[in-house]
Amino acid sequence: METLRVALGSRSYPIHIGAGLLEDVRLYAPHLASRRAAVITNEVVAALYLERVERALAHAGAAATSIVVADGEQAKDWRTLEHVFDRLLAARCGRDTLIVALGGGVVGDLAGFAAAVYQRGVPYIQVPTTLLAQVDSSVGGKTAINHPRGKNMIGAFHQPLAVIADLATLDSLPARELRAGAAEVIKHAFILDAAFVDWLEANVVRLLERDRAALAHAVRRSCELKAQVVAADERESGLRAILNFGHTFGHAVETGVGYGEWLHGEAVAAGMVMAAELSVRTQMLARSEAERVRALVARAGLPVAGPAIPPERMLELMQVDKKAEQGRMRFVLLAATGKAVVRGGIEEALVRDAIAACAGEQAPAAAAQ
Amino acid sequence: METLRVALGSRSYPIHIGAGLLEDVRLYAPHLASRRAAVITNEVVAALYLERVERALAHAGAAATSIVVADGEQAKDWRTLEHVFDRLLAARCGRDTLIVALGGGVVGDLAGFAAAVYQRGVPYIQVPTTLLAQVDSSVGGKTAINHPRGKNMIGAFHQPLAVIADLATLDSLPARELRAGAAEVIKHAFILDAAFVDWLEANVVRLLERDRAALAHAVRRSCELKAQVVAADERESGLRAILNFGHTFGHAVETGVGYGEWLHGEAVAAGMVMAAELSVRTQMLARSEAERVRALVARAGLPVAGPAIPPERMLELMQVDKKAEQGRMRFVLLAATGKAVVRGGIEEALVRDAIAACAGEQAPAAAAQ
Repeated sequence: METLRVALGSRSYPIHIGAGLLEDVRLYAPHLASRRAAVITNEVVAALYLERVERALAHAGAAATSIVVADGEQAKDWRTLEHVFDRLLAARCGRDTLIVALGGGVVGDLAGFAAAVYQRGVPYIQVPTTLLAQVDSSVGGKTAINHPRGKNMIGAFHQPLAVIADLATLDSLPARELRAGAAEVIKHAFILDAAFVDWLEANVVRLLERDRAALAHAVRRSCELKAQVVAADERESGLRAILNFGHTFGHAVETGVGYGEWLHGEAVAAGMVMAAELSVRTQMLARSEAERVRALVARAGLPVAGPAIPPERMLELMQVDKKAEQGRMRFVLLAATGKAVVRGGIEEALVRDAIAACAGEQAPAAAAQ
Repeated sequence: METLRVALGSRSYPIHIGAGLLEDVRLYAPHLASRRAAVITNEVVAALYLERVERALAHAGAAATSIVVADGEQAKDWRTLEHVFDRLLAARCGRDTLIVALGGGVVGDLAGFAAAVYQRGVPYIQVPTTLLAQVDSSVGGKTAINHPRGKNMIGAFHQPLAVIADLATLDSLPARELRAGAAEVIKHAFILDAAFVDWLEANVVRLLERDRAALAHAVRRSCELKAQVVAADERESGLRAILNFGHTFGHAVETGVGYGEWLHGEAVAAGMVMAAELSVRTQMLARSEAERVRALVARAGLPVAGPAIPPERMLELMQVDKKAEQGRMRFVLLAATGKAVVRGGIEEALVRDAIAACAGEQAPAAAAQ
């Protein structure tokens, strides 16, 4: 087991990475202020891992309530959140209840947000079971649910007490979801660490073959990079925005095709290709560097083209996105491999052209099963 | 105009107190990071004051969206919150939108919570228009909505950028609501300031007659006392709990009779009498001091007896309350006039007896119109 630390003063917390950690009693015990816990998970993850987590909590002395929600992005909604609160209150969970988010990014965001506002905030632990959640969404304290008008529109910053990333859970992950997680690994590399891009160009295939050592390296390095950014800018007032590389385009893709059609990582992958294209068209990046983004995305089996959404509609969707402040859109662009910058005041025509240059008809689910 | 300050480091903010402040452009202008604002208010307050606030915001250069919710405690619910988000998103309000909470405690709690979680948190200003909101709920950053199983069960700590307490708005307040606000003034005095209790014993009638000088003193002293407590313990990990004097009993009254039957201040008034009774029965307080609580509550025209809820049911309702941690209830009791303490481990029989000793049949609405 390796342990990293997210340095956030009184809100600092460890990220434990290793195989078999899910059932390690010692990782839960220090965080049980009382003997009450509630595990929030989805039906697919529950069938695979819930019993083991319940057993570990029981050994740690906690009585746990389990709340199982539907699988998929649609669970990040208002009704599901209401259901979670109903269940927590029915079980008489008090302010000292530890919430355990067991699952992927959807469960982590939903359970983390529930923890942020249940009785004005209760402690929680992230136990991510997808690559995407392990390398990205479980770290940093961003929690949210979606709204029909936009992704992550209702949420909070709420740091977990710990992240327990069990690499063994990735063995059960569908290949498509493993690839979607690799998109965020690729993102961390391109925005912050050129050497990590080199490593990925050489090792992304091993990673997708679930080579344990390659996974361990990718998860650790991704978490290190993200932890540094989060430590420098917890509430996204500056630097942290670079983590949205590919996301302004990507969220528009997700909203445009309807949540759940494209996986988040797939939309981000296509979004990164668009953002790299825009970086070239704004004279910030050499064409050859943008090609590295496209090539690595393609090598990871991820979409290099967006769905068949007209550029005008994409623009409209991006303007609703919360990154559009005072009506002006801001973009995370690449100045070089391993160096992202945030830019506003970009002409709409350039954005439209970049989208048009990356347009496709390909549905990732069909193309990449 | 007087201005106090809530000292919370980077989250410090001013409380402005005076007559006619509602329309003072200078109090809004410094907080408009962008030219976007959204006023959240209720239908009763909107008819009286919305236009003036909209005009002030317009003069400050902001385009404001107004969201008018129903009057009454039932607006602090899940559906109304969802409606607020729908409206904010339909108006394309971004992260830099300033939310203005114009109204009493219900609007302040609802709008403050909406601000806490809309796009993971946007800035807001409290413009309290009831005595209760001016002396208590608008200060301190506690925001929440209710759940059928309990009051304020879903919420957040989110400090406003400023509080604008316009004493002139109290002229339009129904007498019953003015009395309910006086309950929180009485609370602040009994838990923290014996000299303020003396002042209230001499001046509470003037205050209820809306003597502007008496109101100004009561609002200022209450805000000072509350601001001190909040500055010492922003997130209620210790000292701040004393502000819940009368509230554990009071919330059970509100839940037991159904939200909105008793005003919050009325329930707190009866709750303070019960808490003082329990203080006597646990040998902490002299009977004569508890009589001062009862006498001042009575002089303010507030209920000194609870509703006809059996003590067993009251206990059950209190155990669901979030102040009940690890199954054990904690109570805010008086050790003397002006000195509150938090105590756990009190025998249930004593609590039951204290409730029984304060039981009544009186409905405050009928009794005190």
